[in-house]
Amino acid sequence: MPRFFVSGDEIGGSFMVLTGENAAHAKVLRLKNGDEVTVCDGKGTDYRCTVSDVSAGQISLVVHAAAPARSEAAVRCSVYMAFAKADKFEHVIQKATELGADELVCFPSARCVSRPDEKSLAKKLERWQKIAASAAEQSRRGMIPQVIALPSYRAALARAAQAELAVCFYENEERLTFRAAIEKASPFHTASLLTGPEGGFEPEEVAQAAQAGLSICTLGSRILRCETAPLCALSALMYAAGEF
Amino acid sequence: MPRFFVSGDEIGGSFMVLTGENAAHAKVLRLKNGDEVTVCDGKGTDYRCTVSDVSAGQISLVVHAAAPARSEAAVRCSVYMAFAKADKFEHVIQKATELGADELVCFPSARCVSRPDEKSLAKKLERWQKIAASAAEQSRRGMIPQVIALPSYRAALARAAQAELAVCFYENEERLTFRAAIEKASPFHTASLLTGPEGGFEPEEVAQAAQAGLSICTLGSRILRCETAPLCALSALMYAAGEF
Repeated sequence: MPRFFVSGDEIGGSFMVLTGENAAHAKVLRLKNGDEVTVCDGKGTDYRCTVSDVSAGQISLVVHAAAPARSEAAVRCSVYMAFAKADKFEHVIQKATELGADELVCFPSARCVSRPDEKSLAKKLERWQKIAASAAEQSRRGMIPQVIALPSYRAALARAAQAELAVCFYENEERLTFRAAIEKASPFHTASLLTGPEGGFEPEEVAQAAQAGLSICTLGSRILRCETAPLCALSALMYAAGEF
Repeated sequence: MPRFFVSGDEIGGSFMVLTGENAAHAKVLRLKNGDEVTVCDGKGTDYRCTVSDVSAGQISLVVHAAAPARSEAAVRCSVYMAFAKADKFEHVIQKATELGADELVCFPSARCVSRPDEKSLAKKLERWQKIAASAAEQSRRGMIPQVIALPSYRAALARAAQAELAVCFYENEERLTFRAAIEKASPFHTASLLTGPEGGFEPEEVAQAAQAGLSICTLGSRILRCETAPLCALSALMYAAGEF
């Protein structure tokens, strides 16, 4: 069944109208009167609807029932990734959205070779949020993950540390497994997974992360690329949390 | 420490010579006499060596010690992925190699929109094997995963079913979790993870997989792209097997 994300204030009562990009998308799908669609408020509620009228630029819907989206994970996981080159963060936004992430947070760290300036960052955030929305639609999420940029590594640590399970992955860590950190934090409802840029974190940054309260963990004995590590960790977390 | 893969028959005794691409790579790294390097036979053994001579097109090494590669997973996992469009399989080869896969196996299935013919397949296999080698080097693997193409879906099922844990992932399966399949098969040393093309498997194909002995499992309630599913499953498997 086709799914459309509609912002919360457009939802109300027993009728709804799809406009703009949603209407364009509905046109591509050749929706006609009587077709069933799902409208999501992007915050975890799904509305089962029927098309009642199709006209240029707008599709009218009759709302039948509202229900909590079934595809949202019980654990709310924020993926923290240091600024990386080119399209790596975009790749992670798309994949982490499919995998059930709640937020995508990017931040600068010492070895980042790519740091968008303030002006280009605003544009990028807009683009990134669209990638999340599109991946959420495609993977039938009930909500669109927020994409957030933080101004400093310290700000990222302080924010990440607020989760019940907060982990910083470090390729030189050999002792603490992710499993041990997960078991120690269980039961938990919020998680932060923090990974570094292409060159990894500096040892001092790892010490700062530990001081901020994050567990320093290994992702195994193979060196993962900076865009592979967050997705590996998120997949494992969703598995450990009983999602599949 | 730089790592080089050398085919088994070039290894023997207490001296070794790097030639061809390895020598070119060594030149890029500006290796000089006395530098330490690791030479891998691509089959799980690492050799600690020192550069003893650098000349045009060849680097001579003194071999100090051989040891089992520390970065190989205890579970040998084969990733079976139906032919997909464009560079999706290449993406999976690179990432699955980082994540510790033992083999990458591609095969046709009913909804595959992309099926290389025999001639282009031979060329592609060569290219794919190079991607695996390069990812193995970068992630410091002790072996290079084999990339294999099978002629039919039935051949893929018959081969996949030989593993102690053999799973076919299906987006319409809601009952059996991957965790349940893993727990039922434990302890296991070999695993096959089978995933479909862009449009997924046909219901009859899923029935055939079950008949062949594969467990039909869900990867959760979100719809994963065909290139995301195998990497999600492999990450979870490595986690479940105690790799991190």
